[in-house]
Amino acid sequence: MPIRLDSAEADFETRFTALLSGKREASQDVGDIVAAIIADVRERGDAALVELTNRFDQAGVSAETLRLTPESIARGAASVPQTVRAALQTAHDRIRAHHEKQKPQDQVYTDALGVILGSRWTAVDAVGIYVPGGLASYPSSVLMNAVPAKVAGVSRIAMVVPTPKGEINPAILAAAQIAGVTEIYRVGGAQAVAALAYGTPTIARVDKVVGPGNAFVAAAKRQVFGQVGIDMIAGPSEVLVIADASANPAWVAADLIAQAEHGGGAQSILITTDQRLADAVDREVDRQLALLPKEALAREGWEEFGAIITVDSLDTATTLANRIASEHVELAVDDPQALLSAIRHAGAIFLGHHTPEAIGDYVGGSNHVLPTARSARFASGLGVLDFMKRTSILGCDPSSLAALAEAAVTIANVEGLDGHGRSISIRLNR
Amino acid sequence: MPIRLDSAEADFETRFTALLSGKREASQDVGDIVAAIIADVRERGDAALVELTNRFDQAGVSAETLRLTPESIARGAASVPQTVRAALQTAHDRIRAHHEKQKPQDQVYTDALGVILGSRWTAVDAVGIYVPGGLASYPSSVLMNAVPAKVAGVSRIAMVVPTPKGEINPAILAAAQIAGVTEIYRVGGAQAVAALAYGTPTIARVDKVVGPGNAFVAAAKRQVFGQVGIDMIAGPSEVLVIADASANPAWVAADLIAQAEHGGGAQSILITTDQRLADAVDREVDRQLALLPKEALAREGWEEFGAIITVDSLDTATTLANRIASEHVELAVDDPQALLSAIRHAGAIFLGHHTPEAIGDYVGGSNHVLPTARSARFASGLGVLDFMKRTSILGCDPSSLAALAEAAVTIANVEGLDGHGRSISIRLNR
Repeated sequence: MPIRLDSAEADFETRFTALLSGKREASQDVGDIVAAIIADVRERGDAALVELTNRFDQAGVSAETLRLTPESIARGAASVPQTVRAALQTAHDRIRAHHEKQKPQDQVYTDALGVILGSRWTAVDAVGIYVPGGLASYPSSVLMNAVPAKVAGVSRIAMVVPTPKGEINPAILAAAQIAGVTEIYRVGGAQAVAALAYGTPTIARVDKVVGPGNAFVAAAKRQVFGQVGIDMIAGPSEVLVIADASANPAWVAADLIAQAEHGGGAQSILITTDQRLADAVDREVDRQLALLPKEALAREGWEEFGAIITVDSLDTATTLANRIASEHVELAVDDPQALLSAIRHAGAIFLGHHTPEAIGDYVGGSNHVLPTARSARFASGLGVLDFMKRTSILGCDPSSLAALAEAAVTIANVEGLDGHGRSISIRLNR
Repeated sequence: MPIRLDSAEADFETRFTALLSGKREASQDVGDIVAAIIADVRERGDAALVELTNRFDQAGVSAETLRLTPESIARGAASVPQTVRAALQTAHDRIRAHHEKQKPQDQVYTDALGVILGSRWTAVDAVGIYVPGGLASYPSSVLMNAVPAKVAGVSRIAMVVPTPKGEINPAILAAAQIAGVTEIYRVGGAQAVAALAYGTPTIARVDKVVGPGNAFVAAAKRQVFGQVGIDMIAGPSEVLVIADASANPAWVAADLIAQAEHGGGAQSILITTDQRLADAVDREVDRQLALLPKEALAREGWEEFGAIITVDSLDTATTLANRIASEHVELAVDDPQALLSAIRHAGAIFLGHHTPEAIGDYVGGSNHVLPTARSARFASGLGVLDFMKRTSILGCDPSSLAALAEAAVTIANVEGLDGHGRSISIRLNR
């Protein structure tokens, strides 16, 4: 059974805090193993990559076959049913259209003193996208990682994907083709991240590495951060549904189950002002779980990490929601717009009864790579800005330099940086 | 002597690559020590903080005196000469005015299908700013870290600063007061980062930790990343001056020296199309270094890491500049605007002969926290966006959900996520 909490109960704060701080992932301490793998790839390049790939993935690759040929990509993509390719194309087009609107504007202006000030955005040159093999090998994730990079103007998008026993999900290839991925390598794990960050003769180094992965991939990203940029380190997925009496318990239950079926610590939480809805959803989840092919996985996740919280008001609901800072927040209420501004910490917000979170996973147009594990307190979902960087621009003429000089030299002196002060005063006509 | 390169020489590529990959920092492997410190602070809270602070800083603090009182902050700030406080206020006002222009706009729209899509920006609740003690304890850095947070709307800004032997630079307190820092703690090192990330009874946890520090601070930031957000991990500062025959060798030399005087691996590079300028700058640096109080530090930095590169054209200069991806790029040329678009990777660009980099360190208005160690390939300087996060908004009605359902369910099925598909199809009136 999922836990049931009521904000009116005396021990609510204790139990809610325990829910917040509950650990949903086994934390594997793989830092030392990963450091050794990275050092090996840096030292031995392709030889290390091939050895590690054949050991971990039994993929039977050589340096010559690490990179998929254009022909094998095209063949794999073509083997995907036309309906699926059409759906991926629809998703791509909507994701692309939405992300186009995220492109930042350069801004250069001259202030009252005559100082030119500004910000200019440029694309990262080369990006590496990590795509997991096996269970969580999702074509939608390829789109969600590659399309913002493409929109940003990244010219080189290198994808790495492990191919256990040499096998690859052809839908991944179709998505990569649609998204405009420029190269694909059959390698995964920390060794793939190391190759992307430092380069080997076969895999040229990139500037930024994004995409989800297991504990080894996460540790590798943490270790190469600085050598390259990285995105968030993804944790288990999570949904918070806020519902009032207007919600349909069967629909809410379906959304809670959709999250739980990810397994691996995925969490579904319902907060509702309506006790009867709470009970009805509880029963509905149980009933619908039995209809699911992956019943066992989803049921285990729901029973271990699921929660139903009843509250006295929607105000209390949003207060709790901000403490949870969930990756996904559904507002399954009569007037979702009225709640919107009260939700300050969330990766994405889904408005009203007809917006199941799964629409955002695929074809809504917004990105499904979103901050997990309460990191929506400080982090954003993946977007175009993640593949661009801002350069400051500053320009003085003799008169504006003279106007700023005294304050600058005063601070330089108090900081003991005389050379800084001199670089300014030497330019003044006294 | 700094190294001298010429792009026309046969071994140029080898020597330039060596310059690019040269290590400027001793990499201390302090990960294990830092992990133990973080675990200790998480377990024992203030007791660990006090013990570590008194051991490393001989600061003589107790849990009760870790936090500076408003009176001691005011007293310290008031002890700073009025001219310095006025200069810091000028810097603050200009930094604030420029960063106000970085505030992002929310964007919510309805697309052709009737889907509501959007991005909404909100501020991080609480930020921790690390300020080094000792040599690099700069009031300007307090402003550069705190002002963007304030402009973003961060309500709680907690500053940590080590006070070796109990001493603190009063200019730091003045800057904190001007910038609106809400609390100051006398603690530094990995223990300060741990306290900010996980909280203790005295220091409430924050959501994001920014600011430069030594190897222990850098390792701690890397380890707490995910629990809280972090900014870049700062490396030694660097400047690249691109100059043509119109440049004044004395001014260029002063700028190269200003960077070198940071010490600790700071690097100054000149690229010029003019052989005579190269020689003149070389002599001028030598002459001006002798005038500097910190001559030894700056001379050592210049001789160990400095470089003068002569090239055949400004095109070659910008090509090399993009490979260097310097923190600061000065365009000391006749027509800086003409070069601007060719510089794609740089933390900040300084236009023309009257814009020494030091102006940007203090009072230009742009931020001086910029990407180092070639990370301008993928990272931006600190700004308002670093203290905000973007929440996606998605809203369907029955008709737009129906329009999107088929593609979404198709992808859900190919990904083996039946529960995702069901959460959509259950809402359709068939």
